[in-house]
Amino acid sequence: MSLLSISDIDTAHLTLKPFITQTPLVTNEAFNSLVNAKVYFKLENLQKTGSFKIRGATYKIYLLSKEQKQNGIVTYSSGNHAQAVALASSNYGIETIVVMPDNAPKIKIKNTKSYGADIVLYNPKTESREAIGNKIALETGKTLIKPYDDIDIITGQGTVGKEITEQLKEINTIPDIYLCCVSGGGLIAGSSFYLKSNFPQIESYSVEPENFNDTRLSLKQNYIVSNKNNKSSICDALLVTQPGEITFKINQTTLEAGLDVSDQEVKKTIKILAETLKVKVEPGGAVAAAALLSQKIDVKNKTVVVMISGGNIDQDLFSQIVTENYE
Amino acid sequence: MSLLSISDIDTAHLTLKPFITQTPLVTNEAFNSLVNAKVYFKLENLQKTGSFKIRGATYKIYLLSKEQKQNGIVTYSSGNHAQAVALASSNYGIETIVVMPDNAPKIKIKNTKSYGADIVLYNPKTESREAIGNKIALETGKTLIKPYDDIDIITGQGTVGKEITEQLKEINTIPDIYLCCVSGGGLIAGSSFYLKSNFPQIESYSVEPENFNDTRLSLKQNYIVSNKNNKSSICDALLVTQPGEITFKINQTTLEAGLDVSDQEVKKTIKILAETLKVKVEPGGAVAAAALLSQKIDVKNKTVVVMISGGNIDQDLFSQIVTENYE
Repeated sequence: MSLLSISDIDTAHLTLKPFITQTPLVTNEAFNSLVNAKVYFKLENLQKTGSFKIRGATYKIYLLSKEQKQNGIVTYSSGNHAQAVALASSNYGIETIVVMPDNAPKIKIKNTKSYGADIVLYNPKTESREAIGNKIALETGKTLIKPYDDIDIITGQGTVGKEITEQLKEINTIPDIYLCCVSGGGLIAGSSFYLKSNFPQIESYSVEPENFNDTRLSLKQNYIVSNKNNKSSICDALLVTQPGEITFKINQTTLEAGLDVSDQEVKKTIKILAETLKVKVEPGGAVAAAALLSQKIDVKNKTVVVMISGGNIDQDLFSQIVTENYE
Repeated sequence: MSLLSISDIDTAHLTLKPFITQTPLVTNEAFNSLVNAKVYFKLENLQKTGSFKIRGATYKIYLLSKEQKQNGIVTYSSGNHAQAVALASSNYGIETIVVMPDNAPKIKIKNTKSYGADIVLYNPKTESREAIGNKIALETGKTLIKPYDDIDIITGQGTVGKEITEQLKEINTIPDIYLCCVSGGGLIAGSSFYLKSNFPQIESYSVEPENFNDTRLSLKQNYIVSNKNNKSSICDALLVTQPGEITFKINQTTLEAGLDVSDQEVKKTIKILAETLKVKVEPGGAVAAAALLSQKIDVKNKTVVVMISGGNIDQDLFSQIVTENYE
C-alpha cells in the first residue's frame, strides 16, 4: 500500500499555485567550489511566510469540510507551521488558535499574530503542546491540524518535490543526492518521494541537529527511536524528538540514511550562505547545507539538491552569526 | 533610429542562458501590506557574482573578436562590474585587469580576485578611473570594456527585462510601474526598453542616491547634468556623477522621471527586505525598494516591479544595518 501518490501531489500543486511562490532553484559558483560539487539550492526561505510550511497548511485547510472551516482550527507549532496555518486560514476566513512555545523566535510569534491568529503560549520545558492542542480542540469543536504526521500535510509539502523535479528537467539535470532537514519528517517524506519517483537513482539523506537526530537513529534501527534528553539546539524548527508514524513509514522507503550537524556547523553555514547566495536562512533551514559544508557525506563531482527550508530568524541572532569568525 | 532592439536582446538572452541564473520574481504579503501595492521583486542579488552585471559583461566578452580575446581586457568598476568581467573572462580563458577604487567593499575586491583577475587599485578622490583604464588599454593592447555606456553591455543587461516580461506573462500580470536603480544607466536602459515594448502603458522611474541624482536632474532638464559635489553615499555601486551618453538617450525615451533616496532610507529598506523577503541586498541594490517604502511615488493598489540589483555588501556593514533601529 502506498500512502502517498504522485497524482495527489500534482493535484495539490494545482490547488496551491495561487497561494504559494514558485521558489527558485539556484546554483552558485563560489559555494560549488567550496564543496567540489554542483549544488542546487531550493530556496523555500523565499516562500510566503518564510518557509515551506505554507504548502502543507494551505492544502490541509483547503480540504476541510465547510462545517470544519466554520468551527475553526487549532494547531501547535514552534513557529513556521504556526505562521503558515495563520496565513492559510486567514485566506479562507477561518478562526484559528495556535499553541506556541514561549521561547519561539520573536519574528515567528509576531508574524503569526500579524496573520490574525490567536496565540496560546506554553512552557516547552514543563507542558505538552499536543495535550494543550487536543484540549482546545475538544473544548471548542475546532479541528486540530498536526504539523507533519498527516497525509494531506505531507502531500502538500510534496509539491516542493514536484517543483524541484520540473526545475531540474528544465535544465536537463539529473540529481545524484538530495539533502533535506527533518523535524517530524513531513517535508522530506513528500519531497523525497516525488524526487525518487522521477529520479530513481537519487540518494536522499535526512539532516538533523546532533542532539535531535531521532530520524537518523530510527533509520539505523529500522524502528522509531526517541531522543530523550535535556539538550538544546539553535535549530528551533527542528526540536521534535521522534519521527512521525506516517512520515517515518514513508521515509524508511525513500531515504538512504540520516546525517546530523552541530550548532557551530549550522552557524558557519548561515554565514557562508549569506556571503555566497545572498540569502537569510534560519538555523533549521541551514542544516542540509551544513551537512554538505562539514563533509558529512562524500559529494565530490556529484550533483546535489539541497533544501533551504526557511528564513525566519531574529535579526539580532542573524547579525551575531554573520559577524562571528569561524575557523 | 533605434539604438537597442528587442531581437538583439532576445539573441543575447539565448547566448547568456548557460552562464546566468534565471533569477526569481517574487512577491511578499508582508511587504505588500507596508506599501498598499502588489510588488514584484526581481532578485538579481541572487544572480551569479551577486549582481545583474554578469549579463552585460558576458555578452560583451562573447562578442569580442578572437584577437581581442587573445590580447585580454581591461575595465574599471566600483565592484559589481569588476566581479562580472572577472568571472565572464575566466569562462573564456581571457586575461583581465580591473581598475577598482581602494575603498570598494572588501567582498567585491576579494571576489574579483578569486575569479582570477589582476586588480589595480586607485584613489577615487584624486585619480580618474577612466584615465587609468585608457592608459592600460593603450600600453597593453587590451580591449577596454566600459561598465555601461556601450550598446552591447546595455543589450546584455536588457535580458533581465526579457525575463521579467516572461515571468509576469506567466502569471497573467500587467505591471503599472517599474522602479530601477541607476548609476551609469545601462541596466535601466536595457530593461525598461524591453518592458515598455511589451507593456506600453508601464511607467518607469529611475532611482538614485540623493547626492548622486544626476539622472533625475538630467531627465528634468532634458540634457546631461553632472553632480559635482564632494558628498558621499552608502550606495557604493551608484556613485557615477553623470548619465552615459548612450544610456541617457535611451532613458529619455522610456523613463517618466527620476527619484532619489537618502542613505537612511536605504538602510531601513535593507533591514525590511531581510525581514520580509529573507534576502541580503547591498545599498545600491535597495534604492528602488527604498523609493517605494519612503513613498517617493504613489503606488496605492498598483502593480509595481522593483529591481533588486545586487547583494554584495560586507557582512559587518550588513550586520550593523539589520540590528539598528529605524523609526
